[in-house]
Amino acid sequence: MIGGVTSEFRKGTDIDIVHIALESALKLLKDTGFPRNLIDAVIVSSCSTDQYLSSVIAEIVGVTPKISHRIDNLCNSGTNAIISAFSYIASGLCDSALIIGVEKSNTLGKIFSNDYSRGQYNLPIFWGSIFKKIHMKRYGSTEEQICQIPVNNYLKAKKNKNAINRSNSVNLEQVLNSRVLVEPLKLLECCSICEGSSSILLIADEKFSFFKSQITSNKRNCELIPVSIKGIGQQTNCASFSNAITDIFAEGSARMAAQQAYKMARISPKEVDIAEIHDAFSILEILGYEDLGFVNKGEGGTFVNQNQISINLRGGIIGCGHPIGVTGIAQAVEIFEQLGRKRPNLKLNKSPHIGVVHNLAAAGTSGTVLIMEG
Amino acid sequence: MIGGVTSEFRKGTDIDIVHIALESALKLLKDTGFPRNLIDAVIVSSCSTDQYLSSVIAEIVGVTPKISHRIDNLCNSGTNAIISAFSYIASGLCDSALIIGVEKSNTLGKIFSNDYSRGQYNLPIFWGSIFKKIHMKRYGSTEEQICQIPVNNYLKAKKNKNAINRSNSVNLEQVLNSRVLVEPLKLLECCSICEGSSSILLIADEKFSFFKSQITSNKRNCELIPVSIKGIGQQTNCASFSNAITDIFAEGSARMAAQQAYKMARISPKEVDIAEIHDAFSILEILGYEDLGFVNKGEGGTFVNQNQISINLRGGIIGCGHPIGVTGIAQAVEIFEQLGRKRPNLKLNKSPHIGVVHNLAAAGTSGTVLIMEG
Repeated sequence: MIGGVTSEFRKGTDIDIVHIALESALKLLKDTGFPRNLIDAVIVSSCSTDQYLSSVIAEIVGVTPKISHRIDNLCNSGTNAIISAFSYIASGLCDSALIIGVEKSNTLGKIFSNDYSRGQYNLPIFWGSIFKKIHMKRYGSTEEQICQIPVNNYLKAKKNKNAINRSNSVNLEQVLNSRVLVEPLKLLECCSICEGSSSILLIADEKFSFFKSQITSNKRNCELIPVSIKGIGQQTNCASFSNAITDIFAEGSARMAAQQAYKMARISPKEVDIAEIHDAFSILEILGYEDLGFVNKGEGGTFVNQNQISINLRGGIIGCGHPIGVTGIAQAVEIFEQLGRKRPNLKLNKSPHIGVVHNLAAAGTSGTVLIMEG
Repeated sequence: MIGGVTSEFRKGTDIDIVHIALESALKLLKDTGFPRNLIDAVIVSSCSTDQYLSSVIAEIVGVTPKISHRIDNLCNSGTNAIISAFSYIASGLCDSALIIGVEKSNTLGKIFSNDYSRGQYNLPIFWGSIFKKIHMKRYGSTEEQICQIPVNNYLKAKKNKNAINRSNSVNLEQVLNSRVLVEPLKLLECCSICEGSSSILLIADEKFSFFKSQITSNKRNCELIPVSIKGIGQQTNCASFSNAITDIFAEGSARMAAQQAYKMARISPKEVDIAEIHDAFSILEILGYEDLGFVNKGEGGTFVNQNQISINLRGGIIGCGHPIGVTGIAQAVEIFEQLGRKRPNLKLNKSPHIGVVHNLAAAGTSGTVLIMEG
């Protein structure tokens, strides 16, 4: 990866989806100075119903790629697009890919309406509430531990100019006392669906010098620093909530994805410096600590205020907002920026070298883990 | 590729999209006896708006893949899905993939409504008619030559039990005299949008013996014959009709894709035995002869009744119907069946070894060419 840009995340506007995509894609091309004629693939991640979206965006960006199509898989569409682009490059079919996540806030991905086997659980908050309830009962995690997640993530979002909650602060009292939406989940424990886009330039690692030589430094607005994808894990265990509920507390998809990714990268969880965890609801960040192996099963609640690993520095999904098909890409852009030392306003304990992206879809029925090194 | 099954293509029914997908996917698993636990990826190709469709289908088929997502790019979604699966395998991330194309006949892909830069050309027949008009004026191809395409393809569809036009015959007189829809394109020169599905099992070529050893022959309904994808070409030149019109008569996307594919496969057009050409409108098959290098630019009309290469043996898109996201996959299944000698009812001049799939989208603004060897 040699570049990543995320647009402002905001409530719905009248701007059409193509122009929302351009907000990050054009800035990325301008910042990196990457020549348009060297882009081999354009992969768009979105739950939009707009047809031929990838090719339309490619045309307007001014790229004529070999490969161009859209990918969707609900909330982990973004990491699916990254892995697909990775495979196009690793297979030798392409040397470079422009990956663009884009979403309007009225996306159809909000409600999982077509799988009737989920019964009344079609709104994500229903399964979020059950996960929280089970975790508290089975493992003794407390309201205070879980509600600290939004406090932390709102605080971090204040340093992220693109976060939907960049101007809001909440304290523990406010989260605990916010309106109960679905017992025991409260308003401030939930993310907001929003619009936005996020774009990445992925290249073959071994072609970095070549691509760098193609860009004269006066065409660049930033230093080109390569960040590699070293580990990839993805797992789809089911699609129905009725199956997910037994799954996520045992060997769930994210846990399996993490094991695959660590194995491929040949590292252990102890080596991770920074992580982006899929906190669409507060409790999911705690499950993420466990699935990524930072703590044992059930101990996530005790990990909330640790300072070994920097987690969700951009503000997480709760702080930033959740444009569904964008999230996995925005998470990877954040890790890229940290590893590439492009966020000097953040003071970390140490300079990070290994970052992890953890991205779920549909009650964790599928999960992705990426391990990045920079 | 070690298996391919296409369902019946038909006008819209009340059957939901998941069950249409099962018609080909379950038969494929039954015919090949392929163990579900060895499937690493499920890639769905569809222009449907159903969310999480790939993971829902995977669950109902009984597969828990690593990779699972949907791909769309209008009429060449299917070949995009095949190339994506190929890259997952060639990159080493997967050893096997189940690729499923599925479409309802009320798919949103029918009208390209979101790209206003196409102006009034949003219905494909508008650009089809302009292509025909230009080809006749510029190259002197005749109504009789072009209208012979549907005659040929209806005739071949009679031997395909899944074709929407399996019971219909048309002669040249009928095509020439059928109702003019958009001058000079007539009703019988156009394909029908329909519902159906088509599924493929793709594996790493070098793992054929391993996978074969995992299936005891009494679990199989067919002999397992490997067919390899030797050449891949894909090109996206634009998305708007205003750009396509100058493009398709020069170095259009399909021509560029063909050149890429021949180069990768290290063969010339002369070595092709069978081809599936994207005849959504009669004139497109003629353009296909030219773009695939079977004849020179402008000479496609003279190639209609040749017998050097077996073309559109399943009946083409005109004979079979056009379930948008399925077509590219059904084309590949047909080539697989021919190369694997699974269609003994067809008598070819010689046993074919090299087959080509030619698949366009959106006025040929993007095109895919696959070269298969068996």
